[in-house]
Amino acid sequence: MADFRPISLRDVEAWHAEHDVVVVGEGVAGGAAAIEAARAGADTVVLERMTRGGGATSLSTGITYFGGGTAIQKACGFDDSVDEMKAFVTLAAGAQADPERVRLYCEGSLEHFDWFRSLGVEYKPTFIEEKTTHPFTDDCLTFSGNEEAWPHSAQTRPVPRGHKPAREGEAGGLLMEAVLAGVLDAGATVVNECRVERLVVDEAGRVAGVAAQRDKAPFFVRARRGVVLATGGFIFNEEMVAKHAPHLLQCNYKVGTEGDDGSGINMGAAAGGETVNMSEGLVLNAYYPPASHLKGVLVDATGRRFVNEDSYLGRTSDAIVSKADGRAWLIVDDEIHGQTQAMHRIAAVEESWEALERALELPEGALVQTMAYYNEHAARGEDPLFHKASRYLKPLVEPPFGALDCSTAGSFFGVFTLGGLAVNAAGEVLDHAGRPVPGLFAAGRCTAGLCREGRSYASGLSIGDGSFYGRLAGRAAAAMEPRA
Amino acid sequence: MADFRPISLRDVEAWHAEHDVVVVGEGVAGGAAAIEAARAGADTVVLERMTRGGGATSLSTGITYFGGGTAIQKACGFDDSVDEMKAFVTLAAGAQADPERVRLYCEGSLEHFDWFRSLGVEYKPTFIEEKTTHPFTDDCLTFSGNEEAWPHSAQTRPVPRGHKPAREGEAGGLLMEAVLAGVLDAGATVVNECRVERLVVDEAGRVAGVAAQRDKAPFFVRARRGVVLATGGFIFNEEMVAKHAPHLLQCNYKVGTEGDDGSGINMGAAAGGETVNMSEGLVLNAYYPPASHLKGVLVDATGRRFVNEDSYLGRTSDAIVSKADGRAWLIVDDEIHGQTQAMHRIAAVEESWEALERALELPEGALVQTMAYYNEHAARGEDPLFHKASRYLKPLVEPPFGALDCSTAGSFFGVFTLGGLAVNAAGEVLDHAGRPVPGLFAAGRCTAGLCREGRSYASGLSIGDGSFYGRLAGRAAAAMEPRA
Repeated sequence: MADFRPISLRDVEAWHAEHDVVVVGEGVAGGAAAIEAARAGADTVVLERMTRGGGATSLSTGITYFGGGTAIQKACGFDDSVDEMKAFVTLAAGAQADPERVRLYCEGSLEHFDWFRSLGVEYKPTFIEEKTTHPFTDDCLTFSGNEEAWPHSAQTRPVPRGHKPAREGEAGGLLMEAVLAGVLDAGATVVNECRVERLVVDEAGRVAGVAAQRDKAPFFVRARRGVVLATGGFIFNEEMVAKHAPHLLQCNYKVGTEGDDGSGINMGAAAGGETVNMSEGLVLNAYYPPASHLKGVLVDATGRRFVNEDSYLGRTSDAIVSKADGRAWLIVDDEIHGQTQAMHRIAAVEESWEALERALELPEGALVQTMAYYNEHAARGEDPLFHKASRYLKPLVEPPFGALDCSTAGSFFGVFTLGGLAVNAAGEVLDHAGRPVPGLFAAGRCTAGLCREGRSYASGLSIGDGSFYGRLAGRAAAAMEPRA
Repeated sequence: MADFRPISLRDVEAWHAEHDVVVVGEGVAGGAAAIEAARAGADTVVLERMTRGGGATSLSTGITYFGGGTAIQKACGFDDSVDEMKAFVTLAAGAQADPERVRLYCEGSLEHFDWFRSLGVEYKPTFIEEKTTHPFTDDCLTFSGNEEAWPHSAQTRPVPRGHKPAREGEAGGLLMEAVLAGVLDAGATVVNECRVERLVVDEAGRVAGVAAQRDKAPFFVRARRGVVLATGGFIFNEEMVAKHAPHLLQCNYKVGTEGDDGSGINMGAAAGGETVNMSEGLVLNAYYPPASHLKGVLVDATGRRFVNEDSYLGRTSDAIVSKADGRAWLIVDDEIHGQTQAMHRIAAVEESWEALERALELPEGALVQTMAYYNEHAARGEDPLFHKASRYLKPLVEPPFGALDCSTAGSFFGVFTLGGLAVNAAGEVLDHAGRPVPGLFAAGRCTAGLCREGRSYASGLSIGDGSFYGRLAGRAAAAMEPRA
């Protein structure tokens, strides 16, 4: 593995460039940081290792988690408030969440939505009725997390807050085009194909710049005020995943870019930053759409259910990994069966539960018992075990009965990491004693950010976190006292 | 929180003491390190913050995981081999285990057993038949992990390897007395009531000594060769647990001493060491003895089983936390019910399953269904769901039926941490790029050691790991080139 140890300032013979603020990585977090730093008057540079910025966001749906009463929410007839949003985001952010980050994010959400619109991102005032993971149309508003699913639905009033930019299909690219243009409009300099490898630290421990590779030659960039790491997560670094989150290795599709190799996390840690939440990730196995599949029954290798099937896929997928030990099937009948986007393999099709149970080699009588119990209660609109919403409850009685393979070994499991550098709300990287590492900031997936757990996640929280806290980090770096 | 950043060598005005090897902490890892360093000819000091050494081991049963054919195993009629031990310890060490550490540990086990005996620890050649967690007698050999429980029992031939020193009741104190005497016999110096707070690092990044507090005054100790951190885990540091392993906070009894506050982990990390495995811990809710309780049925809040009840308590307790979300009951009938050492609260006693289900407020029909399925198969000596061993399978049919509260909120849950500094097998602390931090070694629970997961743990692995790898770390520190 590369050497991430910081270089001593006294070992830097000459700087190849010099700026107030140096942003490392031009995904949504780095782009947002650069825009705000430059707008604050700081001479700002973004160093991006790829030929073009964009990062993981440019590969995504572009859904961003906004609320508190956006124009789109209002136009679609949904009431929302900062307090209600805060109550939900507190749940969605997970047990390790930082309440201060949740509060600022929710209180700033309307302004943040306007910020994206001011960059030219457009949102249609339309609601996407059917539960889906990847809206194909240019419609906007969607329940993008567990808002309507138990237990969250019992704790907060469900309000849709996922906002997709107005483009058919994936819209993350459009979002990032706006951010990249915003970076240039704000007057920041962008240097592509420039791979930052180490930080430069002075004798007092303050980060003074970065050491990069550009055109196969060393490229030292001085940061008069601060360095913002926005390098993404570490899902593309198999060694790091094995070390910190080995359960994620069973997932077969890495969500992100090759840049998500943990380099920023390692550079920051080697400069004294603490890493936290390193074992957590978002795991994604999408057995819906079609939404009719939410009427299916997800069972483990003992033939029993283990989660309400209408939860957000981050929660059901986490349950497949952690509660079902990676082995699960979605049981459907002829009426509800459809094709998923991930084209789940059909593990078995039979005319009776007994035959399906045998075909799946489940314990004798287990699936039969599960289905008898489920159907009996579904007929009454009840799910005493996991409280699936009544609109997804119907007895599965139309043969043939099928089993879709939702195992990590036999199905499509997307994954990215949720651990990284410890930062405070201003984006300062914190050391093991909770003190800022002077001159060093970070945002996005190289940090342990707003949402800490895949099981509570909602789509749009990561783009929301990266962009919102990227902006704060850029401003904080720009506000640092310049070094002499 | 304290400042753990290393002090620059040039800021040290004077050393109060000077040794070849400085060991921090005198639990079993530090004691073992000091013995071996001193025996290797190094001038060695142990700095212990408490009035007396002992650490968490002195509070334990003293069971240590030895195998490969010890005299005790042979005398009790059990065959064992290094390869069979390796196969089992590979499973017990968990998914994140380091195969090299497993190999060395197993290959060195007979010698390591003799090493303890040479210190004066005695072991009786007797086997403890009944499955228990805390043997009350002075008998020795016990199945101390999941050896006999599925799925481990299907993967390796069950052999008992837990060795308890010959003393009635807890024997960890006796074990540590022998180690503490061994430290002095080997010629090492022991300084008690000396709290190490920071490392001292020279300009090249090599650890040069430690800064401690002694008699309320600073006490700087130079290490000519190396520093060995053996400071224990972090379960007594609530802030660290909240940050790295928040699910462990629901456990109400910290296993260890107040010294287990993570100070060594933080000092090592601040000097450039990487921390790994920080989210893992061993969780312990002992519903046996009496062994008759292994015939009980452990159910979650949906009234269903989630683990074979005859697993080692590290596995059942982990399952209560991770699979049952902290809510579980052990269901017993009149025949098998007894009092546990932890005196589990009886949540309900009823004459029928229907009544018990209602009393526990479980979903309608769920417990009834679970017990019907379990009893039907138990009568045939089968457990198709979780493969409990046949000797623990009997239908529960003697009313009244009872439910023992095994929830984290209502029962006794012991816990300690299994994460810490990344080290190689020689005990060198590794940085984020996998390179040794020069002059810094670590062993025991301040490291991510031999066993990485509570769900696969076996009693004796932590004392075994700390003592075995403490010895190697002590030798490696003693073998360092002395600084000028």
